[in-house]
Amino acid sequence: MKFCLFLPPQINDGQVPLLTYLSGLTCNEETFSFKACAYKEASRLGMAILSPDTSPRGEDVPDDEAWDIGQGAGFYLDAQEAPWSNNYKMYSYITDELRQIVLNDFNIDSEKLGIFGHSMGGHGALVIYLRNTNIYKSVSAFAPICSPSNVPWGTKAFLTYLGEDKDTWKQYDACELMKMSTSDHARPLILIDQGLGDQFLDVQLQPEQFVTACEEVEQKVNLRCHEKYDHGYYFIQSFISDHLHHHKGVLDDE
Amino acid sequence: MKFCLFLPPQINDGQVPLLTYLSGLTCNEETFSFKACAYKEASRLGMAILSPDTSPRGEDVPDDEAWDIGQGAGFYLDAQEAPWSNNYKMYSYITDELRQIVLNDFNIDSEKLGIFGHSMGGHGALVIYLRNTNIYKSVSAFAPICSPSNVPWGTKAFLTYLGEDKDTWKQYDACELMKMSTSDHARPLILIDQGLGDQFLDVQLQPEQFVTACEEVEQKVNLRCHEKYDHGYYFIQSFISDHLHHHKGVLDDE
Repeated sequence: MKFCLFLPPQINDGQVPLLTYLSGLTCNEETFSFKACAYKEASRLGMAILSPDTSPRGEDVPDDEAWDIGQGAGFYLDAQEAPWSNNYKMYSYITDELRQIVLNDFNIDSEKLGIFGHSMGGHGALVIYLRNTNIYKSVSAFAPICSPSNVPWGTKAFLTYLGEDKDTWKQYDACELMKMSTSDHARPLILIDQGLGDQFLDVQLQPEQFVTACEEVEQKVNLRCHEKYDHGYYFIQSFISDHLHHHKGVLDDE
Repeated sequence: MKFCLFLPPQINDGQVPLLTYLSGLTCNEETFSFKACAYKEASRLGMAILSPDTSPRGEDVPDDEAWDIGQGAGFYLDAQEAPWSNNYKMYSYITDELRQIVLNDFNIDSEKLGIFGHSMGGHGALVIYLRNTNIYKSVSAFAPICSPSNVPWGTKAFLTYLGEDKDTWKQYDACELMKMSTSDHARPLILIDQGLGDQFLDVQLQPEQFVTACEEVEQKVNLRCHEKYDHGYYFIQSFISDHLHHHKGVLDDE
């Protein structure tokens, strides 16, 4: 498994916060580094950023000809179905193994961890945050897949990796997790940016479903919709600084 | 031939300045778009940015197994030697054909053209500017090859593309062009950024030669040297905004 880790200069003077960024379908650990234009502002703010790969890789790792299943499409879950269940454990990898490696080897403040992501990685960030608010204290997303149990990408992935048990699906569905969560007024604002020129908005992403779920439990959420912006990294570049400042503000309040 | 062209929103209200960015060895027309993180600030400043490929491409175009000759390594000159002279005309392509295409098709202020580049493209920017100050009104460079007639990359390229006549070489050597130019106090400041952790600094780049040449003709030049920065695009990302503001300032004075 490969990952990219940006360390700001402030790490030489003490512990720094760490954001984990989860990429979308077909991306790898380098996508964020190359395309998000985040490091200059992260350097100013003194925040480390960890960007893992989107799936296990390698000749012995199961794959699929489709680009939305298999390598590059791990969906940040722990697979239960053959042949995926041996390797596709991205949920445990992100929340446990990789987190421990980074905390052990770098001067990171383990009390100041945030998570964010894009598309499939926005789904991953929301799910991982909602199931681990003891670990991750801040969350945001760009164009996340908000209701995977009800959209083509999500149902295909969940059937493939998790099987047919819909109760299992709920553990990886941000809308379901939000609705199941008890109202927690201490939970900070969730920031979501969405382009209105995004070709996947209506069929695959459905952020309004997530806003509705948040309203049911009185969770604060800021869904910002932007005219004309599409699903790509120029959209992310345009608003990445806002996300870094969002996390910085939330983590500073911890 | 492919190119990328960034257009800022201000182009809907009238003509905008245009910067041409020339990339380095092995790059193509997409490198700047993906890696320089320039477009957010260019959008604020209202500047268009044109980034052409670094050479002709295609099955019928001569190439070489070496990465520093042939496709991806056009050196922004008009080749005179076989088999290159049929296709390798990047100097004319940049200054004439491509410029005319963009000026004809987009709402660009032809009196506000600047040029900049990186490494081989820094060489190209300095050379093209010095030979065409009637066209390009501002120039800057990241880690440019400043004295190609005297370094391995440059002498290999010049021998291959131009042959052995050293007088021809001078037309593509920024130091030689600067020394040959009459003192022109109206010429604006030239901005150059250079990383001191750049592995190519001493052998291939030699910016101090260019500063010396500038001093001989009283050309204002600002060579900024940065501890630890290397030759890559994280270096460029770190200072790209300064370059955009440099060009904006010079072009606004026109």
